Amino acid sequence: MNAEILAVGTELLMGQIANTNAQYISKRMNDIGINIYFHSVVGDNPARLKDSLDIALKRSDAVIMTGGLGPTQDDLTKETVAQIMGRKLVLHEESLEKIKGFFQRINRPMAQNNVKQAYLPEDSIIIPNNNGTAPGCIIENGGKVIIMLPGPPSEMRPMLEDTVIPYFESKSPYKLVSKYIRIFGIGESSMEEKIIDLIEKQTNPTIAPYAKEGEVTLRVTARYEKDKENDDLITPVIEEIKSRLGDTVYSLENKNLEEVVGELLINKNVSISFAESCTGGLVSSKLTNIAGISQVFNRSVVSYSNQAKMENLGVKKETLEKFGAVSKETAVEMAAGIRNAADTDIGVSITGIAGPGGGTDEKPVGLVYIALADKSGVRHKELRLWGNRERIRNVTCLHVFDMIRRWVLGNGEELN
Amino acid sequence: MNAEILAVGTELLMGQIANTNAQYISKRMNDIGINIYFHSVVGDNPARLKDSLDIALKRSDAVIMTGGLGPTQDDLTKETVAQIMGRKLVLHEESLEKIKGFFQRINRPMAQNNVKQAYLPEDSIIIPNNNGTAPGCIIENGGKVIIMLPGPPSEMRPMLEDTVIPYFESKSPYKLVSKYIRIFGIGESSMEEKIIDLIEKQTNPTIAPYAKEGEVTLRVTARYEKDKENDDLITPVIEEIKSRLGDTVYSLENKNLEEVVGELLINKNVSISFAESCTGGLVSSKLTNIAGISQVFNRSVVSYSNQAKMENLGVKKETLEKFGAVSKETAVEMAAGIRNAADTDIGVSITGIAGPGGGTDEKPVGLVYIALADKSGVRHKELRLWGNRERIRNVTCLHVFDMIRRWVLGNGEELN
Repeated sequence: MNAEILAVGTELLMGQIANTNAQYISKRMNDIGINIYFHSVVGDNPARLKDSLDIALKRSDAVIMTGGLGPTQDDLTKETVAQIMGRKLVLHEESLEKIKGFFQRINRPMAQNNVKQAYLPEDSIIIPNNNGTAPGCIIENGGKVIIMLPGPPSEMRPMLEDTVIPYFESKSPYKLVSKYIRIFGIGESSMEEKIIDLIEKQTNPTIAPYAKEGEVTLRVTARYEKDKENDDLITPVIEEIKSRLGDTVYSLENKNLEEVVGELLINKNVSISFAESCTGGLVSSKLTNIAGISQVFNRSVVSYSNQAKMENLGVKKETLEKFGAVSKETAVEMAAGIRNAADTDIGVSITGIAGPGGGTDEKPVGLVYIALADKSGVRHKELRLWGNRERIRNVTCLHVFDMIRRWVLGNGEELN
Repeated sequence: MNAEILAVGTELLMGQIANTNAQYISKRMNDIGINIYFHSVVGDNPARLKDSLDIALKRSDAVIMTGGLGPTQDDLTKETVAQIMGRKLVLHEESLEKIKGFFQRINRPMAQNNVKQAYLPEDSIIIPNNNGTAPGCIIENGGKVIIMLPGPPSEMRPMLEDTVIPYFESKSPYKLVSKYIRIFGIGESSMEEKIIDLIEKQTNPTIAPYAKEGEVTLRVTARYEKDKENDDLITPVIEEIKSRLGDTVYSLENKNLEEVVGELLINKNVSISFAESCTGGLVSSKLTNIAGISQVFNRSVVSYSNQAKMENLGVKKETLEKFGAVSKETAVEMAAGIRNAADTDIGVSITGIAGPGGGTDEKPVGLVYIALADKSGVRHKELRLWGNRERIRNVTCLHVFDMIRRWVLGNGEELN
C-alpha cells in the first residue's frame, strides 16, 4: 500500500510554520511498511484543495490529511472533503461531549464556534482527540482511504499512534524495516567513497546516505513479506558498513548524538556538569531533553560574563587578560572549574565566537574551544566552524557530545 | 506570478528531516509578492519526479526545487530536469573552481564525485554557492521558470537571498505585504470572538488567525499594484485589532517573544540572569540566539541538583526540605539568589515538573513556578501546563519571556 500526506494550511504556504507533521507521519508510516511517495501542502482554499485531493487520490491508495479542522472560519478541510465524497456532515454527540469536557479540564469557557468541530462526515470512523478539541476521521470510499487529522502536533501525534497506525497495520501485506546508521566526524563524500561498492550493488536492502548539519546518516531498508521479518537481511549489511566506518558510527538505533550520550552517562553513572559560553545553555538544554538525565546531570553555568567565569568557575583573571575569554587556556580552566564546583566525574566547557559579530583576524567567527576535565586532567579541542550563529552553535554541540561519548567509551572499563 | 516549491529527497519522505526549506522560501516569496499555492515533496526517483514536475509546471508559473544536487549516486534532480527540458548537462568551469576552492578553504580533500556538481544544464543562469559545493541554476523555458537549489539550508538560504529573490523581484507586477500580529496569553477561539466582525468583512487586506504551541498569530495581508505600496491599507486594520486585544499583543513585526524580550532588554539596558531547573538551559539558549545579548545577559545557572540550588543560588536547605524543589518558595529564592549572585537588574527563575516522570497528585507533571526578582522584591507565577516534556518546556519559556516583557514595559518610565 502506498500513501501520501496532504497538509492543509495557508500558514504553511506563508512560511509561518514548517510541516513537521509530514515528517512525523512519514516516519511512522514507513515503520509499518507503508510507502510514502509524496507530500503536498495546499492552502485553506476549497478549489485548490479539491484539485490536490484529486491528484492524490489518483496516484495513492491512502491520503493522510492534516490541518484545517480548527474552530475558525478558514478551517475548511472537512467541509471540502465531505463535499467531494458526497457525504453530509453530521453532529457527533460523543465528540461534542469530549470537546465540552476538554474545556472543563483546562478550566476555560468553550467558545461557540468549537461546536463546528463536532460535525463529522457521515459513515466515517471517528478518531478521538484526547489532547485538543478537533476529532479526526477515516473515510473509506471506492478502495481509497482518506484520513483527516488536526494540525497541532501535540494532538495529531497521539491520534496517529492510537487510531491510525492500528488501522493501517492490519491492512498492509508487507513490512518495510529501516535501520539508521548515524555517523559523526566524516563528510558525506568521504564516507560514500568508503562504501560505494555496497551502495552500487544494493537491491534489498537498499542503502541511502544523506547529510544533515554537521553529520551523516545512512538508511538501510529491507522489505519483507509479512511473517518473513525474521529473515534479517539488514544485520550483515550494517556489520559490513560499521567495520569500514569504525568509531565514527555513533548509533544504530537512529538516536541523536545527545540521546546516545545521555543514555551512556545514565547507564555508566557518570555525573556531569557544564560551563557554557558561546552555546548559551544549548548543550544543557539538549541534554536535559532526555528524561531521567537528572540522575547524572548536576548543573551548568552559562558564563557569558567574565565575572561569571571567575566567580562560578574559578577562571583566573590573568588567564582571561592574557589569553582572552575565547582561548584554549580559558576553556581548560572552565572545565576544571565546573567539575570542581559541582563535584562531578567530568566537567565540560565551551567557549567560542558564534558570530555574527565579535570575530577578529586572529580569532575569527567560528573559532570554538571545548574541553573536558576528569580526575586525571583536562583534554581540549580547537574547532574552526563555518556558517551562521545557529549553525556554529549547533555543530559545536555535536562536537561536545562526541567528545563526551569518546571519553565515556574510552573509560568504559574503569567505570564498570 | 504564482510559484510552488518542489523538494526532492527520499529523506523527507522517510521522515528523517522536516521540509524547513519550504517554510523559508515561502516566507521570502510572499514577502516579495509571489503567491505560493503548493508545496510538494517527492523522492529521489526520476519517474515520480518527472510526474511531479509536470503537475507543477501545469499549475504554476515558477517551480522552485530544492535538494538532489549532492555529490552522491541518488542525487538526480539536475539529470531529471535536464532530460525533461531537453537540455544537456555541461561542465561549468567556474563552478568547478569554486568547488575546489571550497575544499581548500575547509582544508579537506575533494572527493572525485564532487566534480558531478559542476555539471549544469546548458543555457541556464548559474546560482553561485558560497557556503557549500552544489551550485544551483535558473532555467527559463516557454514562459515557465524552474529554479534548482541545494537542500542544506545553510547553502540554500544565501543563494535564495543573493540570486533568486533579485531575479523574481524585477518580474513581479504586484506587491503583497503581510504584517503579523503576535499574541500571547489568549486562546485562538476567544481571540477570534473578539475580532470576528473584522475577519468576516475582510477583502483587502485579509485577516487570518492561526495557533502555534501556546500562542496565536494574526496575519494581515494587503495586495498592492506596484508603486502603490504607500497606500497603506494595513495600519488602520492593525490599530483596530490592537485596540481590541490590548497588551496580549507582543509584536507587530513578526518577532518571536524571545526576540522582542532580547531587544527590550538591550534597548533599556536591563541586565539579567537566570536560574533554570526544569527548562535545563532552554530559556538561556533561546535568549542567547539573539546577537548582541551579551551586553545585558550576565549568566545562568542550570541548577538541576539541590546542591547547585543551595551553592550557586543560596536557596535555603529548609526551604527545599519544607516546600520541595518545585514550589513557589524555592522559585522565589532562586530568582533572588541568582540576581544577587550575578548582581543584575533582574533575576529570573524556573522550577517545575516537565515529565514524563516525577509527577504526584499534589504536584503533577506540568506544574511550574516562575519568578522574577528586582530591587524591590520578587513576583512569581504558578503555571499548570499540559502536554509532553517538550511542550511543557517550550510553553514555560513563553511564560518566562512574557513575564520579563511585562516587567520591562511596566518599569519603562523608571528605566529611561
